[in-house]
This record gives sequence, structure tokens and C-alpha cells, in this order.
Amino acid sequence: MFFYIFEFVKDQIKKELAKLIRSFNRKGWSPATSTNYSFRISEEPNTIVVSRSGIDKAYFTKDDFIEVNRKGEALPAFESQRPSAETLIHCSIYDLFPQAQFVLHSHSVYPVLWSMKLQEQIIFQGYEVQKGFDGQKSHLDEVCIPILENSQNMVEFSTWMENRSAEFTNHCFLIKGHGTYAWGKTLFEAKRHLETLDYLCELEWKRNFESK
Amino acid sequence: MFFYIFEFVKDQIKKELAKLIRSFNRKGWSPATSTNYSFRISEEPNTIVVSRSGIDKAYFTKDDFIEVNRKGEALPAFESQRPSAETLIHCSIYDLFPQAQFVLHSHSVYPVLWSMKLQEQIIFQGYEVQKGFDGQKSHLDEVCIPILENSQNMVEFSTWMENRSAEFTNHCFLIKGHGTYAWGKTLFEAKRHLETLDYLCELEWKRNFESK
Amino acid sequence: MFFYIFEFVKDQIKKELAKLIRSFNRKGWSPATSTNYSFRISEEPNTIVVSRSGIDKAYFTKDDFIEVNRKGEALPAFESQRPSAETLIHCSIYDLFPQAQFVLHSHSVYPVLWSMKLQEQIIFQGYEVQKGFDGQKSHLDEVCIPILENSQNMVEFSTWMENRSAEFTNHCFLIKGHGTYAWGKTLFEAKRHLETLDYLCELEWKRNFESK
Amino acid sequence: MFFYIFEFVKDQIKKELAKLIRSFNRKGWSPATSTNYSFRISEEPNTIVVSRSGIDKAYFTKDDFIEVNRKGEALPAFESQRPSAETLIHCSIYDLFPQAQFVLHSHSVYPVLWSMKLQEQIIFQGYEVQKGFDGQKSHLDEVCIPILENSQNMVEFSTWMENRSAEFTNHCFLIKGHGTYAWGKTLFEAKRHLETLDYLCELEWKRNFESK
Repeated sequence: MFFYIFEFVKDQIKKELAKLIRSFNRKGWSPATSTNYSFRISEEPNTIVVSRSGIDKAYFTKDDFIEVNRKGEALPAFESQRPSAETLIHCSIYDLFPQAQFVLHSHSVYPVLWSMKLQEQIIFQGYEVQKGFDGQKSHLDEVCIPILENSQNMVEFSTWMENRSAEFTNHCFLIKGHGTYAWGKTLFEAKRHLETLDYLCELEWKRNFESK
Repeated sequence: MFFYIFEFVKDQIKKELAKLIRSFNRKGWSPATSTNYSFRISEEPNTIVVSRSGIDKAYFTKDDFIEVNRKGEALPAFESQRPSAETLIHCSIYDLFPQAQFVLHSHSVYPVLWSMKLQEQIIFQGYEVQKGFDGQKSHLDEVCIPILENSQNMVEFSTWMENRSAEFTNHCFLIKGHGTYAWGKTLFEAKRHLETLDYLCELEWKRNFESK
Repeated sequence: MFFYIFEFVKDQIKKELAKLIRSFNRKGWSPATSTNYSFRISEEPNTIVVSRSGIDKAYFTKDDFIEVNRKGEALPAFESQRPSAETLIHCSIYDLFPQAQFVLHSHSVYPVLWSMKLQEQIIFQGYEVQKGFDGQKSHLDEVCIPILENSQNMVEFSTWMENRSAEFTNHCFLIKGHGTYAWGKTLFEAKRHLETLDYLCELEWKRNFESK
Repeated sequence: MFFYIFEFVKDQIKKELAKLIRSFNRKGWSPATSTNYSFRISEEPNTIVVSRSGIDKAYFTKDDFIEVNRKGEALPAFESQRPSAETLIHCSIYDLFPQAQFVLHSHSVYPVLWSMKLQEQIIFQGYEVQKGFDGQKSHLDEVCIPILENSQNMVEFSTWMENRSAEFTNHCFLIKGHGTYAWGKTLFEAKRHLETLDYLCELEWKRNFESK
């Protein structure tokens, strides 16, 4: 009985997330099959539902998710399909931030541009939209978002995440030459964090470089 | 009887405004649950219909409006819901400009960029589209749009609006690092004012900074 | 009998053009109720079907056209409605270029930016898409598009058009701080001319100013 | 019997490709009737299905394809229609790369901008999305994409392609002042190659020129 409820809930979430993934794709946030997405439900704390590898996000549907354990290994029912190479990043986020229920990823251009220009972090100050990050209360405060090196070795990358996890106070980070990750307690919140970061990166880029 | 007519009219307006809000969102004008919108109908001069706080504008519907009094306090029927934090800005606009029936807000990037670059106002001259502001007759005239400081204190901000209300001759203003407000006698006119301001800010930004 | 055929044909064209007008609006080519559009059918050489004044192009429908004579005056059946202020520009184009059947107008940003930067004309050379202008055969040729001063006096403006009509060999022109006009023997061709001009202005702007 | 299967398969592919062509058009990748597209099916190795000349890609349908032989000449059933002028480019790609089954073309602005700025090739390094090109495994590698001169003489251009075919290791190239071509073993792969190239050109342009 409980099983059917969980399955129904998961199915509804998959539909909603798939729709959001396609809308991000229309904005150009996931070119060339890039990006990946996941969620978990509190009733199944050891299961992560994550997008399959190599799917064109313009056509992503609820059937393009598979289930993995907390180490990123496909559960038996999904063994024939390959999880995204970056599944371990999702696992690390859920390990480091127990409240996170959704993890979103984007390759939108302005965060990537900043990631190539700066080293350790990007700082925003003076923008109303900073309040889009949970915990931020005023445009007057400084908001710091960490930038991590890119790596093709996901174990190495997970170690870097762990080492810098104290800096992840705004529920997102950038990866150099790669993109952004953002998470939240709900899909609504994770989306807000991702959009906040993208918007601030665009404003700050145009403000700094176009108007000089 | 009259009551039902008012309710029907309000419902139609809510639908139309909600549709417009979603279309602004598709343009990137309301990232991360930002922005808010309102209207009033002349039969109920003390009631303002305003968007609820924290709604993702991609999914905004007619049911996401609540009613407040002229001080921005939720009417009894809506007490369980929170009006947008910026509701007082809407109230001030209706107080200062009795003809205003619709108030729109945007976080589109070019006005925000200008607001960070300039101090008191932005001036446009030479553009045909300036005529989009009610009262403007020729591209040869100078059009001045005031820029206000941002504040998290809405009472303080309302005082600033009052002090500078004589400058609001073009039915809109900018808030530093925040966005734009525009209003009109109709939704049609308020939309035209908002689009005029956004378009002129984009043209002027690219003209001044990209081509130097 | 013939009357009904003409009416049916006009109705079909109105639908098709209205659909195109809404699609241009989605690209941001007609902010704030700006722009206007017209066509004529060869069976009624003295009648021009033109968009009404002040319509929001996001919602433009086939019923937003009215009919005027070659002097831009509303025909009796349409006397209660106001033609666009720029109707005389359409009339002049049809007078100067008897083959023109469709006239399109746009406020897209890159042509406007160029119009503020240059004086008499803009020249393109080296782009494959130049062949989008009827008569152009190679990217190696120079393509010159005239830029006219803007005026609120349509009679004055029409004289300027007449004086420079020999330069209109590419079926389009720019107006300073205002926008573009393009025309064609068919709607298909007029659209191609308008898109060619817009695209070349964007490429040339970014090539010249962003990369220096 | 086999004939009907081939026809059915081709019809399905035409529908899918036509849909993709319209979606590229919405991104602005095919202004003014530009660009062309083709595929072939392994059962008919001597037949290429290619877009007709001069179609507005906003309205492209499955009926806008015609069939040509490996020399680009229309097959008897299609003799009344004109293949795209650039059909020979498609033929050359199929000759040079026997695995290619789909060829896509784009006029998106950033590749064209780069093609006007650089001479022989464009090099990307440091971007995660480089892995979108089949064979690329790491962001640390250098990816070189050749740039060819533009020509109105397709025989001449085909010779240039042949001479430089050893450089086409990433399944795409740029043409100066013109656009990009990309191909793949499947439509999925060809699309991924085209999007990868477009995205990298945009990032690299903004990184190099906007932020200096």
C-alpha cells in the first residue's frame, strides 16, 4: 500500500521536474545533452531519482529518470540504464546537506563566463534579487558563491566539495568552465536558487564588462 | 447583484493580468519569484487586488491575487495569505496618482543595469518609442525617468516616493539594483509604459556602452 | 460574386499577416504598441489594408486592420477607426514601388542602434545572408541600405522618401532612432527582406563593437 | 514491401527533422529562408533527402524535402522542384564521412562572428561542453574546428572541403560570413554537434570580447 503511494508521488514529481527541465532547455541552459537533475523523497532516504545519461533535454520526459543508491549505483530495476556521469555530485550534495530534496544543474552562459574569469568565488552586493537565496534578507549584504575547479574524476570532485562545504551557505556553487548546481528543500526553492544565481551572474557580467 | 458584477469583472481582470504576468516571466522579467502586480476597480476605491508573496511567476494564476486595503493590510477574507512585501509601493502609487488603476513591476536587466550606473534619473532623447509614454508627442523631446534608492523598509521607501512624486510624469520609475514600476489608467496603458521603459533602457545601454 | 472572392482572399491574408505580426512581437520587434503593417491586392489597386493605430501587437488579430485609400484616408466603412499615424509611409512605398504588395515595419534593436550611429546609410559586405535581398547574388558585393531622418510630420517624411527613392534598391530602409521598413511582392518576400536586414544589423553591430 | 517500409521510415524522419528545423528557426538560426538540412537512410545509399530551396524555415514541413542523387541532382519524381543551392555541400560531407547520416546547417550569430574574426580555425579549451563532440573526453583537451572560405561556386567549395577533410575530426566546420555545418550518425548526434559548436562559440565570444 505504502509502496503505491510512494510510486504515485514519485511519478507526479518526475512529471513536474521533467516539465521544468524542458523549460530550462528552451532558455538555452542545457545545450548538447548537458546537465542533470535529481530528487529524493523522505520516505526512501537511501534512494536518489536522477536523470539518465546523454538525454537531449529538449525531449526529456518522466521516463528518463532512473533510481540510484547513495553511492550513485543504479538500483537493480534500473541496471540496464546508465546514470549521468555526474550522479556522484548529486549524492555528495545530499550527503552534505540533509535538508536538500532537489538538485538542479545548469550550463547557462553567464555563470560559466564568470567561472572562467574568477578563481575562488563570485560576490554579489546591492541587488534586490539576492534575497532569492534562502537566508538572505537585504540587498545591502554581500553574497559569496564558491567556484570549484572542474574535474572529469567525480571522486576527486566530491572531495573538493566536502573540503569547501562550509562556503555553500547559499545553496549553490559554480564549476569552472562547466556550469552551476543549486539545491533546495523543495523543487520551488531549488528553482529559485538556480534562477537567482543565473540572473545575478548576468547582471554583474553586463554591469562590469559592457559598461566599462 | 452589484456584488456579483464586481466579482465577475475582477475575475476577468485577474485572468488577463495573470496571463500577462506569465508572459513577462517568459521574457525573464521576474526571475526567482520576484516582482508583484496589482489593480483596483473604481467601484471599490478602497480595495487593491495584489499578487501574493513568493509566487513563481512562471505558474502565476488568477488565484494568486489577494485583496488589501489602502494601507496594504489583507482584507478579512484573505487574512491567511501574505501580500507581497512591496504592497506598500502599490498603495503609494494609487495614493499619489488617483487615475492609476494598474501597477506593474519588472526586474528586466537593462533598467537594473542603468539603475546601478546612474544616480538620480535616466534621460532618453531621440527615440520614436518615447511616444509610448502617455503625454509624449515627439522623439525630439527629453524624457526623464527618476531613479530611487532601494530600501527594505517600505515605509521609508514610500516617503521617498512622495518626496519625488513631481518627477513621476512618465508613469514609471526605477529602483536602484532592483527594477522598475509602471502604472496606467488601463492594463493596456500600464503594459505600454513598462515596455517603453524596458526597451529604451536596452537601446540606450547598448548604444552607450557596446559601441564605445 | 467577385466582391466575395476579394473579401475571402483579403480575409485569408489578414489572418496570415496577423499571425506573423504576433510572431514578430514575441521576438521583441514591436514593443509598446509600436510598428504597423499593410498589404494591398492587385484587384483593388486603390485600396490599402493597414493596421489600426495603437494596437498591442501581442494581441493583434485580423480584425485590427482597416482599409484606406492611396492618400491614407479611411474608407467609409472604416471611418470610425483611426489608421496608424505612419500610414502615409505605407502609401508612399506603394506609390514609389508599384510591385510592392506588402509593407512591414520593425523596431528591433540592432537596426535602431545603427541608425543612431551612422548618418546616410549602412553598408554590408561579406555575409552570405545578403542574398536574402532580392537581386543580390553574392556575399562579395556591397549592399547599401539608406537611413532616413525621423519626423513626426508624415508629409515631410514622404518627401524625403521620394527624394531618396533611387537608393531603395534593396527593398528596405532605416529611420533614425525609430526602426526599419521592408516590402516585397509577396508576404514571404517582405518577411525575408525584413529578417535579412535585422540579422545583418545584429551581426555587424556585434562584429564592430563587441570585438574591438 | 521493402519499398513501403523505407517510405514509412523516411516519412517519420522527415517529420522529426522538420520539427527540429522549426525549433532552430525559433532560436534565430535560420533567418530569411537561409540554411538547409539533409539525411539519408542506409537502405538507399545513393539517395539523399534534402530541404528544398528558399523555404521559410518558420513554416518548414515534411513536404519540403526532395530527393537527390549523390551528385546533388533531383531524382525523377522531384525534377519539378529545386534543391537547395548548397546541396553539393551535403553530398561532399556524405562522401567524405561514410558514417554521416544527417547533415545540419545553421546561421546562428556567434559562429558567424568568429568566422569573420579568425582565419583558419577556432580552438576551444577548458569547457565541459567540449565533450559534446563525439570523441572528446575531457575539458582539458584542445578542440580545433576548421573555418573555410565562403564561395558561391559549390564545386570550388567542395574541393576546399576535400583538401581540408583531415581537420574535420569534430564533425563540423564554419564557413566565413556564412554559418556552420555539423553532421552525425543519428539526428540526435548531429543536433548535439551543432548545439555544442554554437554554445562554445557564444561562450568564447563573450569571454574574449565582452570582458576585456
